[in-house]
This record gives sequence, structure tokens and C-alpha cells, in this order.
Amino acid sequence: MRLTNFTDYSLRVLIYLGTRRGEARLATIDDIATAYRISRNHLTKIVHHLAKEGYIETTRGKGGGMRLARAPEEISVGTVVRGTEEDFALVECFQDGNLDCSIIPACALPPFLNRALAAFFRELDSRTLADLLRPRAQLVQLFRRG
Amino acid sequence: MRLTNFTDYSLRVLIYLGTRRGEARLATIDDIATAYRISRNHLTKIVHHLAKEGYIETTRGKGGGMRLARAPEEISVGTVVRGTEEDFALVECFQDGNLDCSIIPACALPPFLNRALAAFFRELDSRTLADLLRPRAQLVQLFRRG
Repeated sequence: MRLTNFTDYSLRVLIYLGTRRGEARLATIDDIATAYRISRNHLTKIVHHLAKEGYIETTRGKGGGMRLARAPEEISVGTVVRGTEEDFALVECFQDGNLDCSIIPACALPPFLNRALAAFFRELDSRTLADLLRPRAQLVQLFRRG
Repeated sequence: MRLTNFTDYSLRVLIYLGTRRGEARLATIDDIATAYRISRNHLTKIVHHLAKEGYIETTRGKGGGMRLARAPEEISVGTVVRGTEEDFALVECFQDGNLDCSIIPACALPPFLNRALAAFFRELDSRTLADLLRPRAQLVQLFRRG
């Protein structure tokens, strides 16, 4: 059971931008790529998604870059993950239109799995980006080392 | 977020064998392949795993086949899923030895994700194969149609 790299990296971008709050200079994709040693290509798509979802705002041109568009307390980890995961098709029959399994009309597994998924998200919904930023001084130091 | 097909099919095999309890004739891989319209190849590995884990017992030769080795009430859905999933590496840094991310020493995400995963499994641990077999008459009918 895994989350996508897209989710993983989206959370990392938000953590990075969270530690930069209050700084005059906007963060760039290069800053984030250096801080995490990950490719700019991955990051471009992620930044686009996070901007579209209203988590960050971006400015083009010289001196341009990005910053959080909301307070970290207002960014729910659960909501971010729901938006970045492609689907929550835990088993085959959860996929749209997939009715291959012969016992679908009687199977008790889907409601059990849905309850488990709901419990998973209840935990993540109880956390915000602010919780991820508590060790801020340490995070800042680690980003500096890159 | 997905479970592997291996998990999905393992649960299906257990459900099938559960509905066959009390029948004199042992179930064969062909029976299960026909009931679910899935390939024998997949099933062979799954049956091997389920036998190794002590959920089913198999007999070779003429009249051979398999059946549940335990009462359905004693087969926890959570335990089955823990045994069939390769890993629960929700994010990159959960993978053994993967220390690529620069903020690992300070990151608050792993404990949050672990709590969410624990909540997920608490739900599945509260269910047994017996719960999946409640609509038994309906399941038997669906298997007959194949």
C-alpha cells in the first residue's frame, strides 16, 4: 500500500514553503529542487497542481516564484492527499465501471475497506501543515544543508 | 492508494473456500478460476501463500484440492492483508534504507502516516472472514453462475 510520489512531493513542497513564510524573497522551483535534491521536472507539475488547488500562489518573471496562499493551519493534510492521489481504488471493483468480479452483488468487502479508508483519512484530516512545521528551526537547518 | 491484486485475490480465494465449508469435495484451483473468471497462474501463487500462512490446507493427487484450515471467525481480514501486501511504504522514506529525503531527521509526516495506517488496520482487524461470508447463500449462487 503506497501513496504516489506526487503526493509525497506535494507535501514536501508545502513543508518547504511553510518554512519560508515571512521571507521577502519568493521561493523558486530551483530552491525546492536543491533543498530536496529532486528533479525540477517532477516539481513543475506539482507546483502547477498546488497552485490550481489554491494552496500556493505563483508570480512570474524576475523576482518571481511562489509562496503559500493560505496559513499552514488552514491546509489540511487529509485534503491535500485526497487531491493528489489519483484514486482510492483499494481493490479492482472500486475502479469506475469495473464489474469483473463475479460476487460484486453480494460482497461485503467494499464497505469494510471504505470504513478503513475513512479511518485513515480521519487521522490525516486531524492534521494541518502547521503540525508538519512544528520542528521549523530544524527543518530550516536541514534545507540549508540540502 | 491501492492494495495489490495479490491481496484482492487472496481475499477472494478465502471467501470462495469459506462458502464451500462442509462440502465433501475439496475445492480445486480450477473451481476458483471458474468461479471468479481469473487466471489459474495468479491463483497458484496465492494458494501457495495462503497454505504457507496456515489459512488453508491442500491435498495432492486424485480427489485432492484445498479447504480452509481454520474457522472463518479465526481468520482476521487485517492479518490476511498485512501478510499479502509487500510493504506499507506509504512514502519513499518508509522504504528500508531509503534516506534520500533531506528532512528525514525532523520530518513530522511519518508518525502521522503511521497513525493513519494503524487506524486503517484497526478497522480491518475488527473483521474476520466470517463477516465476509454473511451473505453466504447469495455468494454460493453467484459462484454457480461463475
